[in-house]
Amino acid sequence: MSYDHFFADAVDALRRERRYRTFADVERDATRFPRATWHSPGGPREIVVWCSNDYLGMGSHPAVVEAMRETALRRGAGAGGTRNISGNSHEIVLLERELADLHGKEQGLVFTSGYVSNATGISTIAKLIPDCVVISDELNHNSMIEGVRQGGRQKFIFRHNDLAHLEEILQAVADRPKLIVFESVYSMDGDIAPMAAICDLAERYGAMTYLDEVHAVGMYGPRGGGVAERDGVMDRIDVIEGTLGKAFGVVGGYLTGKRVVMDAVRSYAPGFIFTTALPPAVAAAATASIRHLKASNAERDGQRRQVAKVKAALAAAGLPQMETPTHIVPVMVGDAKACKAASDVLLNEHNIYIQPINYPTVPRGTERLRITPTPFHNDKLIAHLADALNDVWNRLDLPRVRDTGSERRLVAAGAASLAMPTAGG
Amino acid sequence: MSYDHFFADAVDALRRERRYRTFADVERDATRFPRATWHSPGGPREIVVWCSNDYLGMGSHPAVVEAMRETALRRGAGAGGTRNISGNSHEIVLLERELADLHGKEQGLVFTSGYVSNATGISTIAKLIPDCVVISDELNHNSMIEGVRQGGRQKFIFRHNDLAHLEEILQAVADRPKLIVFESVYSMDGDIAPMAAICDLAERYGAMTYLDEVHAVGMYGPRGGGVAERDGVMDRIDVIEGTLGKAFGVVGGYLTGKRVVMDAVRSYAPGFIFTTALPPAVAAAATASIRHLKASNAERDGQRRQVAKVKAALAAAGLPQMETPTHIVPVMVGDAKACKAASDVLLNEHNIYIQPINYPTVPRGTERLRITPTPFHNDKLIAHLADALNDVWNRLDLPRVRDTGSERRLVAAGAASLAMPTAGG
Repeated sequence: MSYDHFFADAVDALRRERRYRTFADVERDATRFPRATWHSPGGPREIVVWCSNDYLGMGSHPAVVEAMRETALRRGAGAGGTRNISGNSHEIVLLERELADLHGKEQGLVFTSGYVSNATGISTIAKLIPDCVVISDELNHNSMIEGVRQGGRQKFIFRHNDLAHLEEILQAVADRPKLIVFESVYSMDGDIAPMAAICDLAERYGAMTYLDEVHAVGMYGPRGGGVAERDGVMDRIDVIEGTLGKAFGVVGGYLTGKRVVMDAVRSYAPGFIFTTALPPAVAAAATASIRHLKASNAERDGQRRQVAKVKAALAAAGLPQMETPTHIVPVMVGDAKACKAASDVLLNEHNIYIQPINYPTVPRGTERLRITPTPFHNDKLIAHLADALNDVWNRLDLPRVRDTGSERRLVAAGAASLAMPTAGG
Repeated sequence: MSYDHFFADAVDALRRERRYRTFADVERDATRFPRATWHSPGGPREIVVWCSNDYLGMGSHPAVVEAMRETALRRGAGAGGTRNISGNSHEIVLLERELADLHGKEQGLVFTSGYVSNATGISTIAKLIPDCVVISDELNHNSMIEGVRQGGRQKFIFRHNDLAHLEEILQAVADRPKLIVFESVYSMDGDIAPMAAICDLAERYGAMTYLDEVHAVGMYGPRGGGVAERDGVMDRIDVIEGTLGKAFGVVGGYLTGKRVVMDAVRSYAPGFIFTTALPPAVAAAATASIRHLKASNAERDGQRRQVAKVKAALAAAGLPQMETPTHIVPVMVGDAKACKAASDVLLNEHNIYIQPINYPTVPRGTERLRITPTPFHNDKLIAHLADALNDVWNRLDLPRVRDTGSERRLVAAGAASLAMPTAGG
């Protein structure tokens, strides 16, 4: 029996749908972020990366890089084991203290990735609460959907950021334990949850809250504690999840919360227990990054300034950006093939790297370019970006919808038609 | 509604069963491996780590550490995105080539951890094969069990390394697509699968094979390709999974196999798609480690020599070690409380760190100390270990079963009584 054709068929299906993905082979340059070398078929070329989740360029910050280098020298390259079996480095203990402090919680708990923290964190919490109902925003990230699924509890999906729908569900299951699972900044639409209002509902109906802040930590709030810090509701959220791999510029994920909750997750979550710990060098780099962003607003201010300039430049060029209150600037294309073509022309002709965002990362028909300006994308780079996009839109005859309000509705409608949209990859 | 008591109850249950885990706060010292600093309640103390999965000390190898340091300086601390969205570094591309070469396969595919590579790899492969039956060794690691479970296919568990039972199952489902999922070295018992015989059966009944070599890569085979390389059967295994976090001394996991299979997993596995890539510095360190161990046998020879000495020293002391053909030396205690006490005395009185291995990592009644000698555990350290264990066995009046054959049977019997044993954390 040959099995190859099963896999070939699966890949062919993606090609037919024009959503087969190729990964650009990119060499970052820590000394010239956001510039990088692209190993193109025709040889190496200098490009500017406009789609990184290293939102503040902290991956290249000297204090972060030096913490990694110095710790690697003293402690070696890896952790050498699971947290329980010799892998519990002093550096990871310090990182968890730093994270608890960042979110005003009793305890932090570090995972190998944000994906794992959501998948094993949500599923474990749901399993530890007898008869728990999980109530999940429809646009939650794939890792959260996996966590809900693996938890095996009855679940309800509420329409994206829809408080009335959320309340309807809460009323319907009022007498049972309830876990509300949601994000602060949604990565592909760049919108923000009505957090205080969700907390009001959670308190009114006695629900536990689990908040994913991966696209907000480091960037929102006076110390980079996220949107919950900015909105003054950190103490009203039971569990705050975050990542070390986006604005903090390193890799890894975490939960923070009450000591007893973290202790239970630590003790029961298979994705935490049965895996090698993050290396001390990674933990030290993350700690350095968090500490820096607790004290410094320069990166956040710089990002806000450059994001505003990008939005203004795209608006002036008549490009169909989705209006967002965040650092995420999606530009709508609405077709998988055209989106890939736009990205290819940008890279090949303009040396600008913006990956096409296609299904399943976003619903079909809402394919887009997702631009993430950092403080290091200077005015000259922004002018170049706007010119290049303008050229691409002309050459490919892409729609220039100026009414971004209707674009937002288009996206919401597209999303609602999917049972399980899965953002972020 | 308060939720705290749910979590408190769950933690209390572990305390009552004497399997509540505390993590020793340890600072590795790359210049003096396997020595480390333990941040004990009474202050920092020098200890010797005897339970690390950094099996060859490669985490402290100058070429590995320098690759991490140098790459961090040039590329920064993180990858900045998923593989698809700006996180596909040149270093991770090179790492995947290195891994494909190591296992004689067309393509490698890197994941954030071995846990994730198994969980999302097995589940995705199973889902991509219509009507697939998954046939899984009963002692497979928790990450493989998760992969099988998440795949959602009909599954059969065969008795550990039991060829007759495996064949019985293969016969029963002969007309359906079949995936056999097994390990080479089982981490807690230290035994090895009858790999050529499993390949014979797989070929006879037309089954696809998935092999976890995480406790073997780097250490077995002339280039460190694992037991499949040593036994000359690499080309008869369809998918070989491994880790970068044990003998290679860094962090991360991977699959290798045919290009079409890897391409399908790359395109469909949520745990691969929706997560930040490993940092370039981590990838470069892993590549350096693999390259070194492909060419050098000094570490493997040194490990075998010191493992043999440890086994001889424990035998001379009359300690109940489980006989193994591998580098893993389990010493049976058989009781959770006594196992924890033995570990505590070793650490507190003898400055030797060997974590107790309790349920759910091993079946109840088979609690043990698991010793992993590296090439850097010299003869003096081995003599100290044997003396210390002898003292602990005397003080705690632990059983000195000299018939290690019966111990092996005891373990197998204990394991068989559990539907889902979960090794390795």
